[in-house]
Amino acid sequence: MRSKLNDFIDQNKILIEKEMSKHLDNLSIPERLKKSMTYSIEAGGKRIRPILLIASYNAYNKNTQRTLSAAIALEMIHTYSLIHDDLPAMDDDDLRRGKPTNHIVFDEATAILAGDALLTYSFELISNDSALNENEKVKMIQLLAQASGPKGMVAGQFLDMEAENNEIAIEQLERIHTLKTGELLRFAIIGGAYLGGATSEQQKHLREFAFYLGLIFQVQDDILDVMGDPELIGKPTGSDEGNMKSTYPKLLGTKGAIDKKDEYVTKAKEALILANANESYLMELTDYFSQRDH
Amino acid sequence: MRSKLNDFIDQNKILIEKEMSKHLDNLSIPERLKKSMTYSIEAGGKRIRPILLIASYNAYNKNTQRTLSAAIALEMIHTYSLIHDDLPAMDDDDLRRGKPTNHIVFDEATAILAGDALLTYSFELISNDSALNENEKVKMIQLLAQASGPKGMVAGQFLDMEAENNEIAIEQLERIHTLKTGELLRFAIIGGAYLGGATSEQQKHLREFAFYLGLIFQVQDDILDVMGDPELIGKPTGSDEGNMKSTYPKLLGTKGAIDKKDEYVTKAKEALILANANESYLMELTDYFSQRDH
Repeated sequence: MRSKLNDFIDQNKILIEKEMSKHLDNLSIPERLKKSMTYSIEAGGKRIRPILLIASYNAYNKNTQRTLSAAIALEMIHTYSLIHDDLPAMDDDDLRRGKPTNHIVFDEATAILAGDALLTYSFELISNDSALNENEKVKMIQLLAQASGPKGMVAGQFLDMEAENNEIAIEQLERIHTLKTGELLRFAIIGGAYLGGATSEQQKHLREFAFYLGLIFQVQDDILDVMGDPELIGKPTGSDEGNMKSTYPKLLGTKGAIDKKDEYVTKAKEALILANANESYLMELTDYFSQRDH
Repeated sequence: MRSKLNDFIDQNKILIEKEMSKHLDNLSIPERLKKSMTYSIEAGGKRIRPILLIASYNAYNKNTQRTLSAAIALEMIHTYSLIHDDLPAMDDDDLRRGKPTNHIVFDEATAILAGDALLTYSFELISNDSALNENEKVKMIQLLAQASGPKGMVAGQFLDMEAENNEIAIEQLERIHTLKTGELLRFAIIGGAYLGGATSEQQKHLREFAFYLGLIFQVQDDILDVMGDPELIGKPTGSDEGNMKSTYPKLLGTKGAIDKKDEYVTKAKEALILANANESYLMELTDYFSQRDH
């Protein structure tokens, strides 16, 4: 039997994907540029970030329509970051979720521009959203730019590149993940809650929740690289082992990494209770992401 | 004797550069990422776009303070586009304004991320500006995202790459320049006028002005590549000749290109008169840009 959580995830995934494709389809832009943007947007993925944004909003408010531009913008920014991260000058990945990466299907120049285009268009989308008032648009753009820019995700990607081939301490590892993955998750949680009308006290606890959720994500990523099923993950496992990259299992052992993750799950849930969000899907989503197999 | 126009240009150039450096300096971000962003921002340039924005605003309003975040964001977006355009996968340029390009001084990964960072930070800057109200912030972000994204500058860069090694008609050449260069100039003119309080009738004529100004820019760029002084321009001339790139002098001859430019200058000034902006610096700036030697 399917759970309510699974229905929530599936329904919103379909909604988000439909909305993204519709927006891209309606753009009057050069054909091949559109194809490149659409290719990466439609290449799949779990749509974790927009689903979290909607779940966080729903903890305080029900009219999901008001979350759509921010949810889509967030997923587009996540997608742009993957396109740029996969470039030869960056992580040089030919495959992503089992499919050829953007610069392999198109070319490097097109991939760079498709990323730039998705990033820029995200802000336009929010600025155009008639379901939000002007204060809300400014606040969402501000939060999203902070989360994804040089103080957020871009800094994380930069530090991750700098750390390559260097052994680093767990504190630095956490800092990188907090920036690279955590900042967009935090935007999902805080942006969604803000739009839903959470108080600043509730938002404070949600920042704590988002912090631990980001770490849970990363620990589980690292664990899957050691113990996961390559077919489910869509890429070979063991890729972290061969290089000098610092991971939780390498620093703490596999058992230690799992214990660490459980500790983070407990702390995340404590924060959710303080934010009065414990009856929302955020509670179940925490377990869901902690136990995901891909 | 120095003209009033020269004073206007110099004073605003200093103001813009000081403001940009101050903002970057205050960012708490990884050191080398900041250095890379700052390197390209401080690598010089005429600051044409923010100066036009301020001049356009001044045609209707005097308090320049209200233009600063948009002026700086615009120059940062222009700078990001140069960093990405210079990458090996794009135009593969080692020099820009006589100095090594960003990826030569740093590395490709850092250059990609510095560009992404400047683009994202531009929107944050406007969203943070306490001199603007929320309506103004949303409108400026919307205009800037449209001008620089997949419907604007990014489309122009994409089409320019596609057209490489193909002979194209003058209509297609104009389309590329209108997108690649014209859209940001148009933002400067329309964004500045909007903030300054221009009526929608006046803005309509300014869109016409901006269209011709963009073409004037490009024709003069092409002419300088044939007739200019490499020392003043900061790069070798004749670079367009060796490749198949379509230019105005190639399509119309040098004399024909100059005539075309003069025709555009006349049309640009007619539009300025209709926009009641003929007593502003925009009039003199049109001649200034038409006759620039670098």
